[in-house]
Amino acid sequence: HSIAVLPGDGIGPEITAPTLELLGELGDFTFTEHPFGGASIDVHGTALTDETLDACKRSDAVLLAAVGGPKWDTTDPSKPRPEQGLLGLRKQLGLFANLRPVRPVPALYDASALKREILDGTDLLVVRELTGGIYFGEKTRTATDASDLCHYTVAEVDRIARVAFDAARKRRNLVHSVDKANVLETSRQWRQVVHEVHGADYAEVQLEDQLVDSCAMELIARPTQFDVIVTENLFGDILSDAAAMLSGSLGMLPSASVGNPDGPGLFEPVHGSAPDIAGQGIANPLATFLSAAMLLRHGLGLEAEATAIEAAVDGALGDGLRTRDLGGTATTAEALDAVRRRLA
Amino acid sequence: HSIAVLPGDGIGPEITAPTLELLGELGDFTFTEHPFGGASIDVHGTALTDETLDACKRSDAVLLAAVGGPKWDTTDPSKPRPEQGLLGLRKQLGLFANLRPVRPVPALYDASALKREILDGTDLLVVRELTGGIYFGEKTRTATDASDLCHYTVAEVDRIARVAFDAARKRRNLVHSVDKANVLETSRQWRQVVHEVHGADYAEVQLEDQLVDSCAMELIARPTQFDVIVTENLFGDILSDAAAMLSGSLGMLPSASVGNPDGPGLFEPVHGSAPDIAGQGIANPLATFLSAAMLLRHGLGLEAEATAIEAAVDGALGDGLRTRDLGGTATTAEALDAVRRRLA
Ligand SMILES: CC(C)[C@H](C(=O)O)[C@@H](O)C(=O)O
Ligand SMILES: CC(C)[C@H](C(=O)O)[C@@H](O)C(=O)O
Repeated sequence: HSIAVLPGDGIGPEITAPTLELLGELGDFTFTEHPFGGASIDVHGTALTDETLDACKRSDAVLLAAVGGPKWDTTDPSKPRPEQGLLGLRKQLGLFANLRPVRPVPALYDASALKREILDGTDLLVVRELTGGIYFGEKTRTATDASDLCHYTVAEVDRIARVAFDAARKRRNLVHSVDKANVLETSRQWRQVVHEVHGADYAEVQLEDQLVDSCAMELIARPTQFDVIVTENLFGDILSDAAAMLSGSLGMLPSASVGNPDGPGLFEPVHGSAPDIAGQGIANPLATFLSAAMLLRHGLGLEAEATAIEAAVDGALGDGLRTRDLGGTATTAEALDAVRRRLA
Repeated sequence: HSIAVLPGDGIGPEITAPTLELLGELGDFTFTEHPFGGASIDVHGTALTDETLDACKRSDAVLLAAVGGPKWDTTDPSKPRPEQGLLGLRKQLGLFANLRPVRPVPALYDASALKREILDGTDLLVVRELTGGIYFGEKTRTATDASDLCHYTVAEVDRIARVAFDAARKRRNLVHSVDKANVLETSRQWRQVVHEVHGADYAEVQLEDQLVDSCAMELIARPTQFDVIVTENLFGDILSDAAAMLSGSLGMLPSASVGNPDGPGLFEPVHGSAPDIAGQGIANPLATFLSAAMLLRHGLGLEAEATAIEAAVDGALGDGLRTRDLGGTATTAEALDAVRRRLA
């Protein structure tokens, strides 16, 4: 199995290295590292080169850590930005479905802002549309104004709805479809298409509509009500970060971007490049370990190996492993050791 | 003082009535009620008639309860919808600044999903741009696709930034400007304009940029870090509902929509029309009472009367008043009695 590795920026490289060590203990993988994001801008003037894109296309799966940082922050539309690499990669690889599972670990209840009784029993999956909407619509900018177009085709909504319903069938058979149908035309289309797909092929799955503002609230107040949440790109971005609060830290959440049957999936932690703590060896690598687990499962079909990583992470947390973001003092290296001990 | 009253739909009428009673005890106001939202669609075929709009324009302040409900939910773009009335009213009255204060009351800490130590000391104000962005941009819909345009002018960003900086000066001198500048052109313009206004006229106020996904998380994890949050229309809608979780219930949050020096302001609870509990006499009227307090303060300049309502609500909660949404059994009428007793 060949895995294209994109360490990216900030804490990216230092959480990638231990993840590759961990994967190395589980099988025989070929890793090839490629410049990406700000690191690629510095050398090649663009966040995603043709070489990196081709290497990803030829691989069996792509592992990405994180991109971005103040060094490349700019409000000048003519300058390259690290996120363009991420958005370009998602689009070019045809990865329209982003899967973000959230299942708070009892060992981390203390690290969460939420009360134990709110968290208990939470087990949800955010299915975020990843290659459409306002992220990819036409943008304009003049001296006096700016615009971004949010655009969705019926086909784009149809296919992401199917991903959500299929996922629900393997879980608890409940889908919340989140939109802003009382204001947006794209949301009214979204709602209509989701209901058509539901009626035609998934009538036995329970379907609920929820407005995005209401969902932001309900996620915090009553998270156990959710099984699968399906929503468009921007809403998914905001809601999955809000949902991260259920896990105690963004440092715990993996994601899988899939959808193209003929190409590799992309696996990355939900968190960013955390430039403020980069280079100190204290970043929490667990979300990247768990992303590697998703890579093994969804990308390479290695279910047993995926479960082994997940169980080892749970076990290490049970043993008391706590990085800074979780209220502890463990370093990145100590986190790797703790998980590796459990894996053995 | 003349107050235009729009009870609207769902629980709207039953939370409006006690609010008018309360206001009646504080001064000599002329109330005129007008059909609005779904109630107006049923009678006049449109959510906002010219008569209602004119009456609002002629008033000194507008008090609105809530609009919407499943009866008028439709994904057919040719059908009238209750929210069009709300959006039309905001736009026609020139109310570009929506102020949403969030200050959890210790008496309600138990009703919140968040831990006491997270809530303690939280006191923030969301300043939401209310008449621009994707809410008002051009919309299209065909058989195969749909679109919504997010559009902002420099002037629109400039004036809302000033509202936020002015508010911060009277508070703790800190503004978080929230955008998605790593993806949206409107956000890059937003960030640039906010910094220009800051540099030119408010350099002594502390200014922080924050991405919307990150803000959704930080609001829950570390709410005490915030003083004033300023953001565009859609982000403000989502974030202020997320912030509502800090108050234990959406049933506690008032809002003021202002910005037009030559016309009335609009005062309304943040929550919706709650059709599921409408007509049962159990809706929490406190957010509407607190909206009336904001009306007295910002709309009519009656500071003492505003403070009296706010103190009475705090007092009643301290006495143990809990409606259903707060985990208790008090009815709407009992809530009015409890607050009125404190007011006396
Ligand atoms: C970095 C940014 C462009 C990206 C996004 O908004 O999609 C990130 O927040 C994410 O959620 O993966
Ligand atoms: C009813 C709806 C159109 C409205 C909005 O999104 O502005 C509401 O959610 C609000 O926040 O006042």
